[in-house]
This record gives sequence, C-alpha cells and structure tokens, in this order.
Amino acid sequence: MSQTNSPFCDRTEETIASMSETRLIQSIQEWLGNVCPVSPHGIGDDCAVTDISNESKYLLTTVDGVAWGEHFDTSVTPGLAGRKLMARNLSDIASMGGKPRRAVVSLWMAKSVRLDWLRQFYEGIAKLAEEFEVQVVGGDVARAPEGVFIADLCLQGMSDRPLERKQVQPGDSIWVTGSLGGSILGKHTAFIPRIAEGLWLNEQKWAKSMMDISDGLAKDLPSLVGKYHTVIDQLPLSDAALELSKESGKDPWEHALCDGEDYELVFATDREIDESKFLQEWKEIFETPITRIAQVGDARPEFAMVLNRGAAGQQVFEKRGYEHF
Amino acid sequence: MSQTNSPFCDRTEETIASMSETRLIQSIQEWLGNVCPVSPHGIGDDCAVTDISNESKYLLTTVDGVAWGEHFDTSVTPGLAGRKLMARNLSDIASMGGKPRRAVVSLWMAKSVRLDWLRQFYEGIAKLAEEFEVQVVGGDVARAPEGVFIADLCLQGMSDRPLERKQVQPGDSIWVTGSLGGSILGKHTAFIPRIAEGLWLNEQKWAKSMMDISDGLAKDLPSLVGKYHTVIDQLPLSDAALELSKESGKDPWEHALCDGEDYELVFATDREIDESKFLQEWKEIFETPITRIAQVGDARPEFAMVLNRGAAGQQVFEKRGYEHF
Repeated sequence: MSQTNSPFCDRTEETIASMSETRLIQSIQEWLGNVCPVSPHGIGDDCAVTDISNESKYLLTTVDGVAWGEHFDTSVTPGLAGRKLMARNLSDIASMGGKPRRAVVSLWMAKSVRLDWLRQFYEGIAKLAEEFEVQVVGGDVARAPEGVFIADLCLQGMSDRPLERKQVQPGDSIWVTGSLGGSILGKHTAFIPRIAEGLWLNEQKWAKSMMDISDGLAKDLPSLVGKYHTVIDQLPLSDAALELSKESGKDPWEHALCDGEDYELVFATDREIDESKFLQEWKEIFETPITRIAQVGDARPEFAMVLNRGAAGQQVFEKRGYEHF
Repeated sequence: MSQTNSPFCDRTEETIASMSETRLIQSIQEWLGNVCPVSPHGIGDDCAVTDISNESKYLLTTVDGVAWGEHFDTSVTPGLAGRKLMARNLSDIASMGGKPRRAVVSLWMAKSVRLDWLRQFYEGIAKLAEEFEVQVVGGDVARAPEGVFIADLCLQGMSDRPLERKQVQPGDSIWVTGSLGGSILGKHTAFIPRIAEGLWLNEQKWAKSMMDISDGLAKDLPSLVGKYHTVIDQLPLSDAALELSKESGKDPWEHALCDGEDYELVFATDREIDESKFLQEWKEIFETPITRIAQVGDARPEFAMVLNRGAAGQQVFEKRGYEHF
C-alpha cells in the first residue's frame, strides 16, 4: 500500500517527464472532467475569465510562481526575485488587456531562509505592486525541505472585455512589443509588464487577440493563431539575443524565437485596419517599440511557422520554445 | 555579491526559524507596507474580502497548499492528498460563511512524479470540487527539485456578508462543530469542510464571528476572541484524541486543544441569543455535532484561556497549537 502512494518513480516512461507540458495540461483537463470549464472560462488562456456581475465586468485570475534554482539563482538579488514573481503574473493580466487589482502570495520555505533576504524579496513584490496599483491581500507561509524556496502568486484583475487567444483569421497581422531573445542576460527579472500597452490595445479595439511571450515566440505564437500558420518577415532582435548568439554560436533568430521569458505582448490586428494610423497612434503614446512581425496564413498543413528571411530565402521552422519538463 | 543573494543561511538567529509563524506574518505585513490593506481586506483573516460591485457582493480569496512529506506521506492515497488540498481551502471559505466558486491550482513537481499518481491526485480534487460546486478554472505546472511535490490552490468564494474574526464581546458563547483532536489518525485528509454549516450560521445571523480550527483550538481561539480570555467548560473530544492519548500519555484535552488540522468551525454567538432555540434549529438541519465549549471573559491579563474542568478545578492554559516553523 505505502509504496503505491509515493508520488515518485524511477521509470521515466511512467512519469511526467515522458510528456510535453502541453500534453500534461491536456491530461489535467481530462482528469478534472466536469469541474474544468472550457477556455477562457477554464484552463487554456493566460488568465481564467469569470463573469462576476450583471455589469459586464469580468474577473481575471492567474497564478504563476518562482522557485530558487529554477527561476532565479545567486546572480539575482532577492528584490529582483520578488519583483519577478509579481511581474510574471502582471504580464498574464496584460496579455488579456486587463487591469491588475489584488494578489495573494503562498510561500514554501526551508527553515534556513534568511529574514533579511525574505524582507528584500517582499520589498521587491511591494515596489512593483505599488507601481501597478495592486494590493497584496493575503497569503500563506509553509515549511519546505532544506534548499527549497518556492513562491506562488495568484493575481486577480478586471476587464470589461478580456482579449482572448484564437480570434485570428488569415490575412491578419501579428505584432510584438519590445524586442526578443536572450532574456537570461537580465531581462527575465527586469522586464516591464506591458499593462498600459495591453489595456490600450484592448480599449481602443486595435488588437483582436493577444497573449504574452513567456515560453518563446516559437512555442507561444501557435497558441495565438490556432490552426493557421504564420509567415514571419522580421523579428525585433534584442541586443541580448545578438550578444548571446556570439557565445552560443546559434543564429540570433533562434534566440529570439526559442528563448523563454521575454514577457512581451504578441497580438493580432484585423486585416482591415489602417496599420499606419495604428502605428502613428501607438508612437504618440508609448515609447515601447512595436514591430509587425508576421502575417497569418491559411490553415497549416503540418508546420506552424515559415520564416521569410529575404536573401536567405524561406524556411519552415520546426523548433519549439522552452519546455518545462 | 552572489553569496548575499542566497536565500539560505546556517545561523539560525538570522533565519525564519528564529520567529513564530504569527510574528513572521506580522513582518511580512510590515515589509509589504502600503500595498497590504488592513484585515479583512488584507492579511489576517481566513480569506481576504473584496467589495467587487455595487450589489453588496463580496469576493473571498484564500490560498493554501499541500506538500509531500509535510501534509501527506505514503500512508495517504493520492486521491486523498488531492482531496485535502481542496478541502483545506473550502474550510477557509466556510469559516467566513461564504459559498465557494472557483479555484486555480499551481503544482511544483520533480520530474519523477508518476502520471498515474498525479491522475488520482487530480481526481481527488475534482471529486470534492464537484460535491461543493467549485470549478477549477486555471493553474500552472512547474519543475521542482527531486523529491518535491508541492501544490497550491487559490480558491475564490462569494458572500453577501462575510463573517470576520474579532467581533466578540464578554459574555458571548463559543461553539465548535464536530469533535477535536488526533486528526493525524485520519481526519486530516478525510474531514468534511463545513460549508453548509458556515453558510447557515451566517445567513441566519446566529454567528457573529467565525473561523476554522486549522492549527489547534489553543492557537486559533485567541485569533477569534482578540483581547478577551475564554473560560472553556467542555471540549468535544474525538475518538482519535482518546486513542492517541493512550499512545502519547498526554491528556486527551491537550490533543483536542493542540493537535492541528481539525478543520472544524469555531464561532461566537451573542450573549443575547436564545441558545436552546439555536440548538434546536441546528439539530433539525444538521447531523454535525455542535458543542458550546466556552464563554468569553474580560480582557485578558497575560493568559488567553482558562480550563474549567469540574472536579479537577480551574487551570490557566498556556500551551500553544501547531507552529509552522
């Protein structure tokens, strides 16, 4: 009896390591059955959307965490680690075009966690919370084995009209904010959640579908466009992607497509919009760069992305972004 | 630089092990500063309460988790481990007299977690969710070091009038549902969240203040009554408390007062109510036992509880419940 109750097993084919994160999440949906509603009301978008009143207000809920050794290490100050915890969740609210409101924080800590470190971690949370007008309304602290520091943050936001994924059609344009790739060189903790941009894109009805890039564009973009393929003409390569490609020997495009943790917005605009008017209005309001990276093609055969690299020609892109397991 | 960024330290006096959970939570409130509102809107009650509309509806938010080795082990089936995760949070909603609505689940897992174990864990969550009409609307899965399985659940509920702690006055009566002590013998995973009882006590306005007993009555009761002391006349000792006292050699009262994880409701009724009418109505609706355990005394000098044990006389009780760190 007791052996079968252990969560762990050394036969890889029987463990979660045998499947992709996407497949694991599908399995979880199946196991939950009736109690798991269809996206966006259930699992499958950046936030869960709930109709909470008769005033067309929607509650957005998301949860994301950081773990020592996984999302930060000794190269990251405790304040930046706390900042990252809040910022990751803010990015999920931004990607639905919502306004963040309140958070609860759950900590799992070894006994040996330093108080002064923890103070700076919370100050990092608080600083970003204040900046984005979020209140931390509750939480939990619990004991974990030696060497473990894990923090979950559950963030609630509001929206009159949450922007979902998969409202995309052939001919639509795909845009990204900021620049992509090499976030490990610093941006993974220091990125600015695109709350203002997401709200504006939603309220002005420029964007018809949106998400944030957390696992790399190569993995995330197919979630935005659903059954269609995309033809990527250009990518806003970050300085970090160029820098990293010197070390890694990889094409900077690969860094921009596959490195995780950019936390930029990727969104679709309808083929009918006036793109130059859109760009002009954007530039009047935001300093954040914006790039039209791709056009949505037809329903894809077996590939998700075509890279259109000018003189280098077209290539079908098959690599994927960051896989969690 | 890198050394100072490590969360861990072997000088105990500099770590979280140097303070009680209560003091640690106070520190966290201080560190959060302005972004942490006053209870019940912020940290300090079973749930955080948010006014979300103009219709006097309040959103309740709570987060609680389970960890392998801490909240369950090989003596617990995966289904019961999942059930416990949901049930702990349901108990927090019950303790505010609210109705549970929707949950998100965050998992931190070693690669070696068995799929079949995980399936049963989620089925345990789903079964209880269905029973209490909760939807699981989202979540997150992330990698953790070998040997780690940690799950957080953030639960939202609703209430027209959330029942808070600390609305208690001298002369009020204190009641508990069910029986207390020895939950480690099984109840810690199998307890029934007192949602129906909590809702009824709130809607019928019998209870003026309520919480659940998660860390043991000795630790939790002072949070309910605030500055007053209580005189405890009787305790509903569970069979498990009596059984455990044979092994431990401790007084069964000590098990009932100090063992954690009873997840019963403890609540105060006003000194003016008709207690026999209250009991009669309760028994018409619920099979759940109920016991009037104590009366609220004056503002306490330096002790929180007096035990009034008939022939054995009165004693001041100074022991505390379960401490997390």
